Amino acid sequence: MKIVAIDTYDVRFPTSRELDGSDAMNPDPDYSAAYVVLHADNGRAGHGFTFTIGRGNEVCQAAIEALAPFVVGQSVDDLGEFARRLTHDSQIRWLGPEKGVVHLAAAALINAAWDLAGKTAGKPVWQLLAEMSPQQIVDLVDWRYLSDALNPAEALEILSAALPGRADRIADLKRSGYPAYTTSPGWLGYSDEKLVRLAREAVADGYTQIKLKVGDNLEDDVRRMKLARQTVGDSIRVAVDANQRWDVDEAVRWMTALAPYDPWWIEEPTSPDDVLGHAAIRRALSPSGIKVATGEHVQNRIIFKQLLQADAVDFVQIDAARVAGVNENIAILLLAAKYGKPVCPHAGGVGLCELVQHLSIFDYVAVSGSMQDRVIEYVDHLHEHFVDPVVIQDGAYQVPTAPGFSAEIRPETLQRFSYPDGPEWA
Amino acid sequence: MKIVAIDTYDVRFPTSRELDGSDAMNPDPDYSAAYVVLHADNGRAGHGFTFTIGRGNEVCQAAIEALAPFVVGQSVDDLGEFARRLTHDSQIRWLGPEKGVVHLAAAALINAAWDLAGKTAGKPVWQLLAEMSPQQIVDLVDWRYLSDALNPAEALEILSAALPGRADRIADLKRSGYPAYTTSPGWLGYSDEKLVRLAREAVADGYTQIKLKVGDNLEDDVRRMKLARQTVGDSIRVAVDANQRWDVDEAVRWMTALAPYDPWWIEEPTSPDDVLGHAAIRRALSPSGIKVATGEHVQNRIIFKQLLQADAVDFVQIDAARVAGVNENIAILLLAAKYGKPVCPHAGGVGLCELVQHLSIFDYVAVSGSMQDRVIEYVDHLHEHFVDPVVIQDGAYQVPTAPGFSAEIRPETLQRFSYPDGPEWA
Repeated sequence: MKIVAIDTYDVRFPTSRELDGSDAMNPDPDYSAAYVVLHADNGRAGHGFTFTIGRGNEVCQAAIEALAPFVVGQSVDDLGEFARRLTHDSQIRWLGPEKGVVHLAAAALINAAWDLAGKTAGKPVWQLLAEMSPQQIVDLVDWRYLSDALNPAEALEILSAALPGRADRIADLKRSGYPAYTTSPGWLGYSDEKLVRLAREAVADGYTQIKLKVGDNLEDDVRRMKLARQTVGDSIRVAVDANQRWDVDEAVRWMTALAPYDPWWIEEPTSPDDVLGHAAIRRALSPSGIKVATGEHVQNRIIFKQLLQADAVDFVQIDAARVAGVNENIAILLLAAKYGKPVCPHAGGVGLCELVQHLSIFDYVAVSGSMQDRVIEYVDHLHEHFVDPVVIQDGAYQVPTAPGFSAEIRPETLQRFSYPDGPEWA
Repeated sequence: MKIVAIDTYDVRFPTSRELDGSDAMNPDPDYSAAYVVLHADNGRAGHGFTFTIGRGNEVCQAAIEALAPFVVGQSVDDLGEFARRLTHDSQIRWLGPEKGVVHLAAAALINAAWDLAGKTAGKPVWQLLAEMSPQQIVDLVDWRYLSDALNPAEALEILSAALPGRADRIADLKRSGYPAYTTSPGWLGYSDEKLVRLAREAVADGYTQIKLKVGDNLEDDVRRMKLARQTVGDSIRVAVDANQRWDVDEAVRWMTALAPYDPWWIEEPTSPDDVLGHAAIRRALSPSGIKVATGEHVQNRIIFKQLLQADAVDFVQIDAARVAGVNENIAILLLAAKYGKPVCPHAGGVGLCELVQHLSIFDYVAVSGSMQDRVIEYVDHLHEHFVDPVVIQDGAYQVPTAPGFSAEIRPETLQRFSYPDGPEWA
């Protein structure tokens, strides 16, 4: 199977109008997708995207177009080779390497190739992955820069150890789904009343974990955290998320003030580049039992490797569209399994829930074999724009059954929200 | 002074035709600049650029255009605020943060603003900086994420301690220049004969350090390193540069094989993101006396901070156009001074020598106050395209005297090498 053409789209949703998605670093995001359709010589199409929050989405689109010569006319039969081709071109690599805009663009294209592979095989991507042999999975990974933490032989052992229970775990998932947590109550732009109402609804809907945005004003955060705890009771986990707002000392001070209300984890306390900073924060907070999570802005497997080597995080928050797609996320799932840390994906945005459910399901079936302390983020925005949206029941993601990566946006949405000429923006 | 308009250019030089600049990761670079001209309301223009190696240069140009609304109509009187405005927009920050394409674009714009400031003041940029008070210099820096390593008060102490000798050091520089080393003999695509000839010429020209590219083939590297050592003798430093080619263990094995020929430093042994990897390599190589250098691909001050905190490098190789320009480089110079590590800038490419000489001169005059073990890279390519090219005498950069940042490319070059429509490419 070869790619014969690609189409790209700049799609933006005016989410800043309602302050959906507002946090301490991102006060007014317009959730957006740099979107790509790969047309194959078998007549099928693969859809993929990277997620941005508005301005600059066109720069990602330009980067996708810069990578197009490595896609059009090329085979997608070997998805390991396909992914490496997109991250190894020396001239484009100079712009990263393997980070920022060029990596976001690679994510869009690699995820689209997986959507295509799933649709061609007639299977959802999680199943395509979960039916591969350990060696086939190992061959999908770019092993460069990982060998001081994990080598292919060790990865093969991890995957082989998980072989026996695969069928049982699939049955288990089909019965109970994969647990979710919800960030919907906690956006910084919401009133206290809206926070309380949405937190109450979350518990009623079966969630056992919610999340609040923090980091703009300590007094407000103490009040909101206290309100949330009073609303949900002691048995529900309340995570908090600072979206990189603090320096190391400030993170420790701020979280110490929130400690009486028993926050489950502090997410992105500081720069996502700061491995040693996360390690210092984790050490300082460990007496209070507050855990550290990060990942939605972690640029690639090399930073994740170091977060694990330095014991800097308790939870690994993969993102489906920031690192180089499915392939690099497999490397990160394997690293997390080696170091015994739960993977709790970042989601929300546009379509990130749709994508990342496949990765967590694959992790449970074929990599970690565990759902202990693992939850996938869920945000109830923008799903109506997808052909195969996620299904949440009793606070759990239901296993997707349609072929592909659940990545396809409805054609009428692509048209309406096209930037800057679609009717929503014109 | 306000910016009233900006022009952008995609300029590419077909350097791959002669294998100039070839190394183990970058076999065929076409040295390029995403170039910008800021037009001010005083009638003056500031020139700046970021450096790339060809494909994707247009993506940097698109990112510069995405940042244009934060420049056009804005004041450039406070260059600290100007720089922070370009890295703090939340929507564009999502595409990094502070790394990759959007950061390269910020570098081009911030450097152009410094060129404009220098031309308006009638002074070279190094002098503009070296005449500022310690507090004015501190105010240029974005301090976010640095306080666990260096805070503004400590920076003020470093800068104040260097105040007394400023005039003497300027006089010293005007007499003797700033020492350079040359990479010209060592490109991987050159024959042994060319290597020997250029190494001999380098010594005759007064250089006390040369550099060879390594990392493609160990047998070749041992032969080339031996040849270089035989050619230059024991008193000349021979650094080697792997351009990120290795994993940690491989770096240690390879350099152990080269150790008999006394390499001065190993540059970029592994991924520029891998702080812990560099630290491990440095520990393993320290018995053999081989030092570790990195920086040309280090994305921002936060990674440099960690390289210093983890004692992972012996030399800090700033790049003028990868981090967010002059301002972020001042933060990195201050961090290096705090940790007592010499700064030896990356240069070469297109115009990087022209820019970075200003930063090293400023470092000597007003920050570290030392030239001990400090050298600026020099590569003798493409200088003829600049209005105010660097001047090298007896292996040393001569202090620039023309107003501005030495960043301006000749108009006929902009036209001739414009991609894809200039006469050199059409």
